[in-house]
Amino acid sequence: MGKKILPGHGSGGKLMNEMIDSVIRARFGNESVQLDDSAILSVGGAKIAFTTDTFTITPIFFPGGDIGTLAVNGTVNDLAVMGATPLFLSCALVLEEGLEFEDLERVLDSMKSEADRAGVAIVTGDTKVVPNGKADRIFINTSGIGLIEGLAQRREIEPGDAIIVSGTIGDHGMSIMALRNSLSFSRGLSSDCAPLNRMIRAVTDQFPKSVKFMRDPTRGGVASVLNEIVKGRQISARLIEANLPVREEVRGVCGILGIDPLYAANEGKVVIIARKTDAEEIIKVLKKTPEGRDAAVIGEINREFPGKAYIETTVGGRRILPLLTEEQLPRIC
Amino acid sequence: MGKKILPGHGSGGKLMNEMIDSVIRARFGNESVQLDDSAILSVGGAKIAFTTDTFTITPIFFPGGDIGTLAVNGTVNDLAVMGATPLFLSCALVLEEGLEFEDLERVLDSMKSEADRAGVAIVTGDTKVVPNGKADRIFINTSGIGLIEGLAQRREIEPGDAIIVSGTIGDHGMSIMALRNSLSFSRGLSSDCAPLNRMIRAVTDQFPKSVKFMRDPTRGGVASVLNEIVKGRQISARLIEANLPVREEVRGVCGILGIDPLYAANEGKVVIIARKTDAEEIIKVLKKTPEGRDAAVIGEINREFPGKAYIETTVGGRRILPLLTEEQLPRIC
Repeated sequence: MGKKILPGHGSGGKLMNEMIDSVIRARFGNESVQLDDSAILSVGGAKIAFTTDTFTITPIFFPGGDIGTLAVNGTVNDLAVMGATPLFLSCALVLEEGLEFEDLERVLDSMKSEADRAGVAIVTGDTKVVPNGKADRIFINTSGIGLIEGLAQRREIEPGDAIIVSGTIGDHGMSIMALRNSLSFSRGLSSDCAPLNRMIRAVTDQFPKSVKFMRDPTRGGVASVLNEIVKGRQISARLIEANLPVREEVRGVCGILGIDPLYAANEGKVVIIARKTDAEEIIKVLKKTPEGRDAAVIGEINREFPGKAYIETTVGGRRILPLLTEEQLPRIC
Repeated sequence: MGKKILPGHGSGGKLMNEMIDSVIRARFGNESVQLDDSAILSVGGAKIAFTTDTFTITPIFFPGGDIGTLAVNGTVNDLAVMGATPLFLSCALVLEEGLEFEDLERVLDSMKSEADRAGVAIVTGDTKVVPNGKADRIFINTSGIGLIEGLAQRREIEPGDAIIVSGTIGDHGMSIMALRNSLSFSRGLSSDCAPLNRMIRAVTDQFPKSVKFMRDPTRGGVASVLNEIVKGRQISARLIEANLPVREEVRGVCGILGIDPLYAANEGKVVIIARKTDAEEIIKVLKKTPEGRDAAVIGEINREFPGKAYIETTVGGRRILPLLTEEQLPRIC
C-alpha cells in the first residue's frame, strides 16, 4: 500500500507544508515567481497579483457569514496583503446533486454583496455538478487578480520590527468550532469574515515604506503565520500574551475545547510586520477603520530563539509555539 | 420541498444555461465585461483574458490523458480561443482523504508536462483535503491569465461565413464513454486532449481580421457551440454531414451507444467561424500543425432556420440540432 492523503495534508500545518514542498513545489516551483499567498506577475507591462483558493467549509452557513462570504473575502484579502488592489474575481462552483437552489442563491447573494463591499467584480465562472456523495453540498473556488501600483509589501524583516495584529484573534475558528460542537453558550461568537483591502490600503498609503510583511492568518492562525516568517532564519517572533486581543467568548470556548487562540483561524484580520518606529502610528490608522478597531502591537522580532515563534505568558513564562502537525480544525475555510 | 440541483445543471445544455442566466448572471452579470469562456479585462493598461474551470472528471485516468492534462489544456484553450496568449495558471486541488500519493503525483506530473508543452507557468496554488466520501478522489481548479496583444477574436458573424473545425470530433467524449461502459473493442480510442494555443496563434497571426469567433467545443460538443452562436439571432448554422471529420472508432462507439458525435466532448479541437474567402487558406495553415491535421470546413452560416443549428445529412435530409436539455455524459471534464 502506497502513501495516502490524510486530513493533516490540508491542515495548514507541518504535514501540508511538507507535501506542498515535496510534491507540488518540486514540480511547479519557478524561481521567477513568488510562491506566496499570491504570485506577483508582470503581464503586458502591468504588475499584478494572482491568487486562488477553494472553499470547502462545513457547515456552509455560520454566524457572521457563509461559504460565499468566505470565498470572496479570502481571495480579496490574499491579494490585499500582497499590496495589490483587488480588482477581479472568478467563481467556480462544484455543486452536489440535491443541493437546494435556495441555499445556492443565498450563497451567491453573499458573494455579490461581499464583492460590492470590497469593490471587486466577479467576471468569469464555471459550474460543475457531481453526484450525491461526491462533494459536500458546495465547494467554491475563487481566483483573483489585483493591480500592484506602488511597492509590493515585502521587505526584509529584522530584529526590532513590531508584530501587529489588526484585531481580535480566533473569532472565525472558534465560531465554527462552537457551532460544530453545538456549544449553546457561544451565542455571542461570530466569524470575523470581512474584506480587508480598504483597511490595508489606509495603512500602506500612509506608511509605504515601513510595512515589511502582511498576511491574513487563516488556517493555522497567527502562530502559523509567525512560524512561517521565522522558519530557517536567524530571527524569532516574540509575542506578549497580555497584549493579545482575544474576545471573552473566544477565550471561553478555547478554554473548554483546549485550543490556543493563536492557532485558531481568522478571516478578517491581518498580521503586519512593520518598523518599530511607526508601529504606534500604524495602530492609530488601523483603529480608525471598522475592521481595525481592536488592533494591537502584540510582539516583536528578535534573535532570542532563532527560527522559532514564542510567547511570554502573563505569569512570566516563555512557551515555544510549535508548527502544527495535525489538523486542529478540518475544513475551516 | 424547494427546487434542487440536478445532474443536468452541469451538463453544458439547456438546464445549465437557464441556471447560469437566472441564478448566476442575474447576480454577477456585469455589462462592462464579457461573460464568455474568458473575461476580457483591462488591468494597469494591459488587456488580459481571465478564465476559470474546475475539473471533476471520472475516471481520473483515461487513454490520452488524465485530469491533470485536462486541467491545464482546458484553461489554456479557453484563453487561446479569446485571442489571448496564455501565460499563467493557478492550481487549486481538492483531495479526498485516502487518495494515493502515487496518483496525485502522476496527475501533477501531467500538469507540469502539459504546462511546459503549452508554454505556461503554474504560479500559485491551494490545497484542501476533504473526508472520504466528500469528493471523488481529486478535483482540480485551474484559472488562467492570458495577454491580448492584437485584436480579440470576436467580430460579428454574418451569413456566408464558414464554419471550420480543427480536426476529428468526439474523441474525448467517446473515449471516456467507452471506458465507463467497458467497451473492449474501443482500444483505438483516445482523448484528443491537447493545448491549442500554438495552432490558434498560427491562424490568427496570418489571418488577424478574418477569424470572427473561436471556441473549444468541450461539454456539449460542436452542436452546443453552434447553438450558442445562433441563439436568438437571425442567422442559422448549416453543417454538411459528409464534411464532418469523425474517426471510425468514434463513429462505431457513437452508433452502439446512440450518441451523436456532434454532441460529444472535445478537448483538443476548436470551432472557428471565419470569412468564407479565407476559409481554405485557414485550413491549409491548420493542417500544417500537428493538432490541426484533420481540419475541415464543415458548414456555413446562413439565414435558413434563424436561431437554429442544423445538419444536411448524406442522404439529403435536414435535421435540426437541438440544444441539449439532459446531461448526455456527466463529468466529462
